Amino acid sequence: MNVPSKGFEAIFQPRSIAVIGASSDPNKTGGRPIHMLKIHGFAGAIYPVNPKSAEIQGLKAYPSLTELPEVPDLILVLVPGAAAVSVLEVAAELGVGAAIVLSAGFAENGPEGAVLQQRVSELATQSGMRIVGPNCLGSVSVGNRAVGTFSISMEKEMPATGGISIVTQSGNIGSAALSLLAESGAGVARFIATGNEADVQASDALFWLARDAETKVILLGLETCRDGGRLIAGLEAARDAGKPVIALKIGTSEAGQKAALSHTGGLAGSDRVFDAVFKRYGVVRVHSLEDLVQIGAAVEAIGTRRIGTTPSAAMVAASGGFGVMMADAAAAHGVAVNPLSAASQARIKERLPLASAVNPIDATAQMSADPDILENLVEAALDDPANSTVCLMLALGMNNSRLRGIFTDALQRITDRHLDRTVVACISGPKDAIADLRGMGIACFPTIDAAMSGIAALSRLERGAPSEPMETIARARLQPEAWRNEVTAKAALRAAGLPFTEDLVATTAQEAAEAAESLGGAVVLKILSPEIQHKSDIGGVELGIQGGADAREAFTRIINAADRHAPAARIDGVIVAPMTTGGTELILGATCDATFGPVVMVGLGGIFAEIFEDTALELAPVTKSQAAAMVRRLKAFALLDGARGRAPADIDALTDAIVALSRFALRHAEDVAEIDINPLLVRDKGLGCVALDALIVPNSNHLAEAAE
Amino acid sequence: MNVPSKGFEAIFQPRSIAVIGASSDPNKTGGRPIHMLKIHGFAGAIYPVNPKSAEIQGLKAYPSLTELPEVPDLILVLVPGAAAVSVLEVAAELGVGAAIVLSAGFAENGPEGAVLQQRVSELATQSGMRIVGPNCLGSVSVGNRAVGTFSISMEKEMPATGGISIVTQSGNIGSAALSLLAESGAGVARFIATGNEADVQASDALFWLARDAETKVILLGLETCRDGGRLIAGLEAARDAGKPVIALKIGTSEAGQKAALSHTGGLAGSDRVFDAVFKRYGVVRVHSLEDLVQIGAAVEAIGTRRIGTTPSAAMVAASGGFGVMMADAAAAHGVAVNPLSAASQARIKERLPLASAVNPIDATAQMSADPDILENLVEAALDDPANSTVCLMLALGMNNSRLRGIFTDALQRITDRHLDRTVVACISGPKDAIADLRGMGIACFPTIDAAMSGIAALSRLERGAPSEPMETIARARLQPEAWRNEVTAKAALRAAGLPFTEDLVATTAQEAAEAAESLGGAVVLKILSPEIQHKSDIGGVELGIQGGADAREAFTRIINAADRHAPAARIDGVIVAPMTTGGTELILGATCDATFGPVVMVGLGGIFAEIFEDTALELAPVTKSQAAAMVRRLKAFALLDGARGRAPADIDALTDAIVALSRFALRHAEDVAEIDINPLLVRDKGLGCVALDALIVPNSNHLAEAAE
Repeated sequence: MNVPSKGFEAIFQPRSIAVIGASSDPNKTGGRPIHMLKIHGFAGAIYPVNPKSAEIQGLKAYPSLTELPEVPDLILVLVPGAAAVSVLEVAAELGVGAAIVLSAGFAENGPEGAVLQQRVSELATQSGMRIVGPNCLGSVSVGNRAVGTFSISMEKEMPATGGISIVTQSGNIGSAALSLLAESGAGVARFIATGNEADVQASDALFWLARDAETKVILLGLETCRDGGRLIAGLEAARDAGKPVIALKIGTSEAGQKAALSHTGGLAGSDRVFDAVFKRYGVVRVHSLEDLVQIGAAVEAIGTRRIGTTPSAAMVAASGGFGVMMADAAAAHGVAVNPLSAASQARIKERLPLASAVNPIDATAQMSADPDILENLVEAALDDPANSTVCLMLALGMNNSRLRGIFTDALQRITDRHLDRTVVACISGPKDAIADLRGMGIACFPTIDAAMSGIAALSRLERGAPSEPMETIARARLQPEAWRNEVTAKAALRAAGLPFTEDLVATTAQEAAEAAESLGGAVVLKILSPEIQHKSDIGGVELGIQGGADAREAFTRIINAADRHAPAARIDGVIVAPMTTGGTELILGATCDATFGPVVMVGLGGIFAEIFEDTALELAPVTKSQAAAMVRRLKAFALLDGARGRAPADIDALTDAIVALSRFALRHAEDVAEIDINPLLVRDKGLGCVALDALIVPNSNHLAEAAE
Repeated sequence: MNVPSKGFEAIFQPRSIAVIGASSDPNKTGGRPIHMLKIHGFAGAIYPVNPKSAEIQGLKAYPSLTELPEVPDLILVLVPGAAAVSVLEVAAELGVGAAIVLSAGFAENGPEGAVLQQRVSELATQSGMRIVGPNCLGSVSVGNRAVGTFSISMEKEMPATGGISIVTQSGNIGSAALSLLAESGAGVARFIATGNEADVQASDALFWLARDAETKVILLGLETCRDGGRLIAGLEAARDAGKPVIALKIGTSEAGQKAALSHTGGLAGSDRVFDAVFKRYGVVRVHSLEDLVQIGAAVEAIGTRRIGTTPSAAMVAASGGFGVMMADAAAAHGVAVNPLSAASQARIKERLPLASAVNPIDATAQMSADPDILENLVEAALDDPANSTVCLMLALGMNNSRLRGIFTDALQRITDRHLDRTVVACISGPKDAIADLRGMGIACFPTIDAAMSGIAALSRLERGAPSEPMETIARARLQPEAWRNEVTAKAALRAAGLPFTEDLVATTAQEAAEAAESLGGAVVLKILSPEIQHKSDIGGVELGIQGGADAREAFTRIINAADRHAPAARIDGVIVAPMTTGGTELILGATCDATFGPVVMVGLGGIFAEIFEDTALELAPVTKSQAAAMVRRLKAFALLDGARGRAPADIDALTDAIVALSRFALRHAEDVAEIDINPLLVRDKGLGCVALDALIVPNSNHLAEAAE
């Protein structure tokens, strides 16, 4: 007797599957897995378990798990709630390889179900038996016909065997993706939908699939992330194995996040932080099911071909109008349309005198006259290094058998010779013609817009290289003094390398007058109190104060205003600082994301900040070059880079500040929820930055302590 | 014998069609129209014309047009270039109703072809015979099977008869739209592709279709516009007839515009001006072929139902994940997802206790258990006034016959009762199920993203109402004095109501000193010359000058700088003006668009203007409320509206300025190419605006005169 396989081997490569709660009716959820295992030809043992039947769908049935002839690799649990938990307890005791709880009746059903689900989690931890679900759509391995689902998407036919694996939390999204792939003729390796994730998370499946020989490309569908570290481990594994990950993470909008919260029961971290995580690990993020499957299928088709990080395409169409549409769509997706060289143009014009050969190439109807013409045309475009891809508009042409022959012949010859170059086709059928093209390594998309979105996505495949490994920052506690007030916050950040100058603090009107005199020129006075954060709102800030007499009066006004508006506030004094102006006003910030931990942000400051929301965000820590990339992503970069005849700003000093803040935020992640540096004035090159105000918000533990 | 029909009646409702250059081979361009007229069952007379054959495809053939038994309503010309012109001459002489020149060999072929095309234009003008093409894909009327094309998109089957008409310039784009409509089962009335437009322009066809009883919705595909007035006449006719127009105008990007220029031989006006024109006439603009046909089919399906101008939807799905995706896509397309009332939620929960009923509504798999449940659910959402549509996610469900029965029953009952309310379905097949839903008045889209884009588009259907007819502005010549220099430009604009103050002009250092003294405070000095436009660049501007002595020196420096950098320039003096600051810095402008004439623009000024490109544009003249709508479209509106505790700005004065500029630009359109008012400072409410600088650029005629 075999020793059961364990974990994902048992889930995806089971030699035996027991179905707990098996039904004789192939339309019922308890009958469907057995039906599908049979019709699709699963070669291993199938054990229906049902105490009321001796035979189910022509197979010997067993009254319970303990009475099977062997301990199965995998069990599919279709009995609900408490009954499922009992089954899992027995399975764990027997040493079953893995369990998929397809049935519902858990956390999605309210507090009682949540208690049951907690028991499932504990059981998995204690026993080491991996459990998928509950309330999930299970798994499928296409190659070995191991169907561990009751999804009707598998009912009629299996998708073709291929290299695409799907990992989702939502069963509906996963099975819709599977259906769309099957419909488009793309080849699938594995499917898993993790549902409530009492034990196995999508991240864990990602980690395993990253090392799975059958998996070439991973489609990842996330509604939430219950453990940022496990997701990052999965993404690292995929990156290290060179397996592209295409991710559809939903809940991008406020309304969507609210819906996801009620649906999954757990708030995911900020959507923008997911963006930063995906970017860092070279994940191609998409925003629709259609992009997920189309880009996934294209990435599988091109195999190890890559198009570089700057997307561009030579567009080839039989019509000027299509060419214009391709150029428009390219612009919308950031794909360059670079003109071909004079030599390439001449080469095209030689065969097609009426063609417009610059780019887009209007090949006229002659394009489809014979394979030689198309071959020469596409080859001329491929040989020209101006563009990283050639995008060919085929539209509905392949539905005509004569044209299909011509296109297929020409493209086969070209792709046989140009193994390293990427051809993209816009083609909307038929399915087997698309499969032929994919077999040649051509990326196929159904529409012009999808093709351009796809080319942009292909260019992101190479951006996740770990050129700079993430630095390890030792954690350290931050003393509560740091977040007491503006002066202490500045001191802590100054010590960490951020460009704060030392402020003078006056505790009497006389000290304020002396401070103003010693500074000379115009000064600003600001109330200093642990309890007053919005200083201007209570009259706690006075700008443009000149000389000692004025400063004395301003001090008194500020103290009186604080007494009036915040009588309970502790007053630590009044800051007297020089009026500092000039430079470009930015904001720097750090927050501790609920899922992924500290992130750092830089953005345009001042009155335009809220309107234009021009910010860039990264996981902490960032290196100097990552900080520079953040700054370049800002629209306001043009201001820093010397737009309209302005002097270039001190970007070097700015990136130093971003790096320092990111390291500070990570070092003190245990204590700090948020840091705001606003404004940070970036001066002309060589003159540095100066930060004028700071706020450190401790995390909720500290707030709770403070409230006690 | 009949008197031939004329114009579009002859094109779309011909009683007889002669094919000039007819071929016996149904695969050749000369044979295809006859073949298609026969197989699709055109009921009128078909006259093949070919001097070499007595019979073609079973029909009696004629040696020439003059020997037909009657003068035909319509001729299709398939002989190329010069031969086509000869045919047209004969046809015009005979009094043929209309001609479609499908053959090429005209302007697209170079100068010789352009001469032939010019002859075609003249012939149409002289004879009154309307000519479509040349180099075009002709026309189709589905109802009467009048095929005036050789497009293979018509070869196998005609689309269903319905209310959608297609007008395009590009034959490929038009026939691709036709194929997509046919594929999706939508019903088509007419198709016309106008090609080189020697006579008939797409705009003319639009004008006729606006009054065509068979046409309910018009899909308009434009690569260029050769006559802005004719397009506007067509759009007005459609608006007045209540026929929705969905427009795909290509060449939105710089690369696309370049390609369109080489393709159509004529530069279209600015793409942003097309946007303004479409907005003014309530045209729903789209940016892909798929949106064109999907939104067109949806608009035809909903008939006279409307959803108001603020798009919102109650989302119904069988899965929480789909609900989240719907909410995300809604946000991306500006569709609100408003929560249902407590009563509506209770109504849903009564039938579906496990549902999440807020919005999106996660109806769980129970949604498809029986028609009653779905009917109640959708009806509860429809009865709730919080959202203007209900969007139902059906995905691939209709492919399952049991689910199809349930969905169809439920939706039929609902739509029978709620004739005024709009239901939107995301459904990806099968085709006949989609046709069933469309027949019930349901707007169908294949994907979530398309559905949200569609709902946003449906909300634009009501925005083109002519609530404010365009004011007629009498044209008047502007004297060249107006564009001589800054002072004269300001004077002309001030007389038109724009908020310029009168400047002092000094012609000597002494006058400059006196002016500065009389103004008091800080002043600015600016060189005044017809030849110097970029005053700062040559040292022609001095800011912050205090008092007479400084002004005297500044005057001298400016005059010297002008002598040095622009020795040939006529110097009209030096402006001495008070330093004016405060308020929000905007720019106002007007340009004369090549296609549509004067347009007016308002935008954010200053350093951020170029980076954020925050501008709004309208055809001149604008009314006060249109000007206010322009201002509201700016992102910077938040600044004017009192963001972050700022005082609200004087939007009333700002809109007065926009109205005045728009009227000025239109009045003097014959003389003025461009007007720049930069900056315009908008002050706090009640304090008005002040414009600080002005430039009037005369049109090229004047520039040519000046150069003589």
